[in-house]
Amino acid sequence: MDKKQLKKRIDVAVGRIPADVVIRNAKVVDVCGGKILEGDIAVCDGIIAGVGSYEGKKQYDAAGKYAIPGLIDGHIHIESACVSPEELSRMIVPFGTTTIVADPHEIVNVCGITGLNYMLDAAEKAALDIKYMLPSCVPATPFEHAGAVIDAGAMEQPISDGRILGLGEFMNFPGVVNAFPQDLEKILVACHNGKIIDGHCPGLSGKELNAYASTGIHSDHECTTVEEMESRLSAGMYVIMRQGSACHNLEELLKGVTPYNSRRCLLCSDDRQPKTIFEEGHLDNHLRLCVKNGIDPVTAVQMASLNAAECFGLSDRGAIVPGRRADVVLVDDLESFRVHQVFIGGQEAARDGVYLLPVERQDITPVRGSFHVKDFSPEKLHMHLTSGHVHVIDVMPGGVVTGKGIADIIIDKNGEFVYSPKEDIVKLAVVERHNNTGNVACGFLRGYGLKKGAVAVSIAHDSHNIIVAGTSDEEMAAAVRQVIEQEGGAALIWEGKTIENMPLPIAGIMSDKSGEWVDKKLTDLHLAAFEKMGISREVDPVMTLAFMALPVIPELKLTDMGLFDVTRFEFISVEA
Amino acid sequence: MDKKQLKKRIDVAVGRIPADVVIRNAKVVDVCGGKILEGDIAVCDGIIAGVGSYEGKKQYDAAGKYAIPGLIDGHIHIESACVSPEELSRMIVPFGTTTIVADPHEIVNVCGITGLNYMLDAAEKAALDIKYMLPSCVPATPFEHAGAVIDAGAMEQPISDGRILGLGEFMNFPGVVNAFPQDLEKILVACHNGKIIDGHCPGLSGKELNAYASTGIHSDHECTTVEEMESRLSAGMYVIMRQGSACHNLEELLKGVTPYNSRRCLLCSDDRQPKTIFEEGHLDNHLRLCVKNGIDPVTAVQMASLNAAECFGLSDRGAIVPGRRADVVLVDDLESFRVHQVFIGGQEAARDGVYLLPVERQDITPVRGSFHVKDFSPEKLHMHLTSGHVHVIDVMPGGVVTGKGIADIIIDKNGEFVYSPKEDIVKLAVVERHNNTGNVACGFLRGYGLKKGAVAVSIAHDSHNIIVAGTSDEEMAAAVRQVIEQEGGAALIWEGKTIENMPLPIAGIMSDKSGEWVDKKLTDLHLAAFEKMGISREVDPVMTLAFMALPVIPELKLTDMGLFDVTRFEFISVEA
Repeated sequence: MDKKQLKKRIDVAVGRIPADVVIRNAKVVDVCGGKILEGDIAVCDGIIAGVGSYEGKKQYDAAGKYAIPGLIDGHIHIESACVSPEELSRMIVPFGTTTIVADPHEIVNVCGITGLNYMLDAAEKAALDIKYMLPSCVPATPFEHAGAVIDAGAMEQPISDGRILGLGEFMNFPGVVNAFPQDLEKILVACHNGKIIDGHCPGLSGKELNAYASTGIHSDHECTTVEEMESRLSAGMYVIMRQGSACHNLEELLKGVTPYNSRRCLLCSDDRQPKTIFEEGHLDNHLRLCVKNGIDPVTAVQMASLNAAECFGLSDRGAIVPGRRADVVLVDDLESFRVHQVFIGGQEAARDGVYLLPVERQDITPVRGSFHVKDFSPEKLHMHLTSGHVHVIDVMPGGVVTGKGIADIIIDKNGEFVYSPKEDIVKLAVVERHNNTGNVACGFLRGYGLKKGAVAVSIAHDSHNIIVAGTSDEEMAAAVRQVIEQEGGAALIWEGKTIENMPLPIAGIMSDKSGEWVDKKLTDLHLAAFEKMGISREVDPVMTLAFMALPVIPELKLTDMGLFDVTRFEFISVEA
Repeated sequence: MDKKQLKKRIDVAVGRIPADVVIRNAKVVDVCGGKILEGDIAVCDGIIAGVGSYEGKKQYDAAGKYAIPGLIDGHIHIESACVSPEELSRMIVPFGTTTIVADPHEIVNVCGITGLNYMLDAAEKAALDIKYMLPSCVPATPFEHAGAVIDAGAMEQPISDGRILGLGEFMNFPGVVNAFPQDLEKILVACHNGKIIDGHCPGLSGKELNAYASTGIHSDHECTTVEEMESRLSAGMYVIMRQGSACHNLEELLKGVTPYNSRRCLLCSDDRQPKTIFEEGHLDNHLRLCVKNGIDPVTAVQMASLNAAECFGLSDRGAIVPGRRADVVLVDDLESFRVHQVFIGGQEAARDGVYLLPVERQDITPVRGSFHVKDFSPEKLHMHLTSGHVHVIDVMPGGVVTGKGIADIIIDKNGEFVYSPKEDIVKLAVVERHNNTGNVACGFLRGYGLKKGAVAVSIAHDSHNIIVAGTSDEEMAAAVRQVIEQEGGAALIWEGKTIENMPLPIAGIMSDKSGEWVDKKLTDLHLAAFEKMGISREVDPVMTLAFMALPVIPELKLTDMGLFDVTRFEFISVEA
């Protein structure tokens, strides 16, 4: 801001000159004063100059609708929507979200700082204001190969970037509680750069929670119970209440919101797939749930705006008051929160669900071609078992937790698995795809329902190697090859052919196409998986596999390095 | 913080090693979670490691007393207590205040950046954590001579100092509303350095208030009515509710505090003299008043701690939670708020009203000798009037506002004032004392009650020239000379002699002695002024004069440049 701009803003505020834009006749939800004011919102150079009675060069009539501040999602992984940042902007802005705090954990695990830079560049093309946290756990664990290793030293440069608010969810809470040097070094990098650190500590309590909070980690979005929520608030942490595609924690947590602590509560989606966005909306849906669950509307709006702004140090937004960004959402009422119009920096960005701004796409070249798989062949899937008495990963529908089971399978004379229609057991393999290690690890999956063919995906939290399940090595190999050829995504092989596939060329985890395209592709994939391949309708055919390689979620997982017993925190042999 | 310290903190929090200090068996007021927890507070290297069940190398038994966070005064002028920063620390820490946000407006108006540096250095000797705002209005107005001129250019260096939070109360609100370049430049200096700006805008409303707030000025401590308070909250400003020695706004403003807006409200004293501190306490008194006026105790404590920390970006304090400074106050209950013990950074600083730490004094040499008065003599007080029909400043008891009156006085053959016992009118003069200008301006004061002798003071807001009132030029001159000789303060001349005086060698406005000494001196001065000199008991003999030279408070004032009509905003002649 220079002197001329500041003078113009003052002149607009006083009414000496007309505003650039005026949103007239609004019922303004005043999240600072905690009440509702009637008036016009005057905008100058994208900033609110005043609320009162104003004239402007461009005028919109709010016609008595409620004006709420642009909504702020406190924690989201863009990659979970399988679309680019610009595309997510197009999808969620019409629902009133104008700022997100995104953790590009997935793409950075694939592409490292190149992935981060792509996300930063793409964000600049989005009307949505995307603030990033630097992923804190790359790789997520030492039990797998990711596409990058970002230690404390490698964090120094990116964390000093003004577009990076701090360190993303610090998932390695055991590392913090046990004061592992490499984790402390990361915390200190944030600390010395004056940046915040987001938390992630499901189940942590008591003195261990104190230890975690004592390092300055300032938030948790993993609460599932009021008790957990209250313990984090009392430890001085913000609680970011989550309502995503997979995790629905908001309604339970709202029971713990009080007039004394609501200021420390905010809202997030964490993971939100296109289908959920199109069907339910985004933070507007959170607001509906808040009010439906008895939260006062002004408090609800505070949680979605001012509180998030305070939590993340975004003092330039989060309220419709002079001097802040003119991010304004007009809603029909404070119950349905039906979004009529969305203004970003005073510019009309969406009306009645339609995004109005041009969508400019970021070049994806730097994050394409992320597959580096050495000497892959069906032979790599051979297991040379000496016995059919094996450990199996038991699918548990409706979540990402798995069971650790034991089963007897049929093996042929070479010690290779033979699929039997009598048992709901298929082979599972993880193919390292970042570093040409040639690593392929195999195991068994029970309860997936697959009866014929193979499913391969390169969305595989958190390292995003290729994970494949199948009834024969040949079809599994074909599925893996198809995924590599299409630069990532998902592929279904049935009777030797690719019957459905979804290429995800951005780092092998995101599409360069629309959210509608992703949604349609996933629907088609699911249909084929259920109807042709017999996969259980109780599970998500793609996402179930996507969480099979995540060695921090109990109980048994498979990474490119082998079968991992999460409870014992060690690799175990497939043969039981 | 280094890795070793962080590891130690974690180890203490988890309970692997004993804490440095533990405050046991406390009822902890949890301002983040909004409730009361029972437990021990573990401290490591001055920082809270956890609240729970802990062992420590040094242990204090809170015996069930309430632990509240160290109190934070959001706006105070140390100079108003007429003592040094270290001494104010000694005086208010026993009442539970552990952080103040101080605006050294007075000393900087006298000594410029030298005064600021003295205050910064002195603060480092105080246990009280003193954060400074850089005075924004030096001189306060163009209608007087101060000891320094600090324009935007001169602000660049000091505002970048980490010990300076931002710009102090921006009193020239007409300058902001009218977009005067020199005021905009100051705002931009703060803005470009990422610093905050405190406000001061009594009476401002509507679009002009919008304009003021639109510049980023983030607070106001001058509210006197709920209406004024609500307008500032709705403009996005924090309201710092004041209870000082002169201004008592808190109880009225508490009527406007709601569960929705309390987070934007904080507490301050602004001006607090030793007598008020010794008799009423400091922020503990504010808390008593809050609860007495129906504010929930947790909300009251939030206003005195967390809210202030948030307002000023002091994320390292304001709550008894892991990772924040171990500034802890033990109080008997949440009604009397009687302070039992005060811990600063985990160190016991006061117990039962007694300050326990050594008091180390900052060298005052750089801010001594601040008197530069050219050729002063009784002749300088001659007025050469052509008529006795003159303007008089009417004293209005109980405030700093004055009236503009007209009176007929007796003049001698040389046109000089002759005191008449029939009229309660004395001569008033302001002697410039910073720049050897030789400026002496004279006028008349009605209603002060002085019947014999002269009173001179070098506390004269905001430029702190010497102001003197008297019944004869000779005694006035003697009083001025006495003040100069003693390097500032106050002096009473009666029957040609100094009957009482209070030297204030620090910039001519603060003592290097104790608060008790200041209090005793003022009491003696007042007694002599009332009993010997006949000054009206309805006024404060010293402070009444101290505000006579402040040309921003209506209606008629006298600066070293002449008689100033504040309403007309221009100098007027003494002869009516």
